[in-house]
Amino acid sequence: MTTIFTKIIRGDIPCHKVYEDDQVLAFLDINPLSRGHTLIIPKEEVATLDALSDEAAAALGRALPRIARAVCAASGTREFNVLQNNGAGAHQAVMHVHFHIIPKTQDGRGLGIGWKPMLFSDADGKALAADIASRLSD
Amino acid sequence: MTTIFTKIIRGDIPCHKVYEDDQVLAFLDINPLSRGHTLIIPKEEVATLDALSDEAAAALGRALPRIARAVCAASGTREFNVLQNNGAGAHQAVMHVHFHIIPKTQDGRGLGIGWKPMLFSDADGKALAADIASRLSD
Repeated sequence: MTTIFTKIIRGDIPCHKVYEDDQVLAFLDINPLSRGHTLIIPKEEVATLDALSDEAAAALGRALPRIARAVCAASGTREFNVLQNNGAGAHQAVMHVHFHIIPKTQDGRGLGIGWKPMLFSDADGKALAADIASRLSD
Repeated sequence: MTTIFTKIIRGDIPCHKVYEDDQVLAFLDINPLSRGHTLIIPKEEVATLDALSDEAAAALGRALPRIARAVCAASGTREFNVLQNNGAGAHQAVMHVHFHIIPKTQDGRGLGIGWKPMLFSDADGKALAADIASRLSD
């Protein structure tokens, strides 16, 4: 499935590129939440993180701290959020895996976060953790 | 700097563990936004992502897809958000790097996202991308 990000990777559509290696490309979000808002994408063409290969995920993870340092330095911020959305209902707009690095700037710009914890018992936690762990060992 | 996560890594404080390897630990958030809300942390003891070593960041990145798959399977969801906060002003509560995997469940639970893009000119983008890229090549 091809998205606009494939065209950016291929150079068919321009971007404000900040970083590129064999597996990863990073460029400015053209609709930024704050100055320095950057997207980091794998060149591997998959829609959601759960479908990404171990190798591409490792390369992407490795690139995050160094890009974050450069974004913070250039935007003059120390605080930032990293966000990666999967599915239209979870706010994903382009169906190619992308991590946002979003500086929290002094003018108050950046990611808005809504946080409403739910009740959760220790017994629920024990059963659920065992369930998730069992699926990881498959 | 020691946080509660160091005590969890050491086993001094219990957790609902779902995954562990040499460099990474994953366990349920005890104040979940939705069923399956999981934290993935590096064993390397640093407060924010920009301070994380390349090796720890790669190990953490590599673990994310497989943990996401297990969380989705166990929670019966396909949509989810990955969030990683840096700095108290950016909603970070525990000063040890942690990635949230937050399922977007059918009852509407999950991460709330506030999204207010700013105006950004092509000229601004060109200059800022060049600035970030130059800091990456240092």
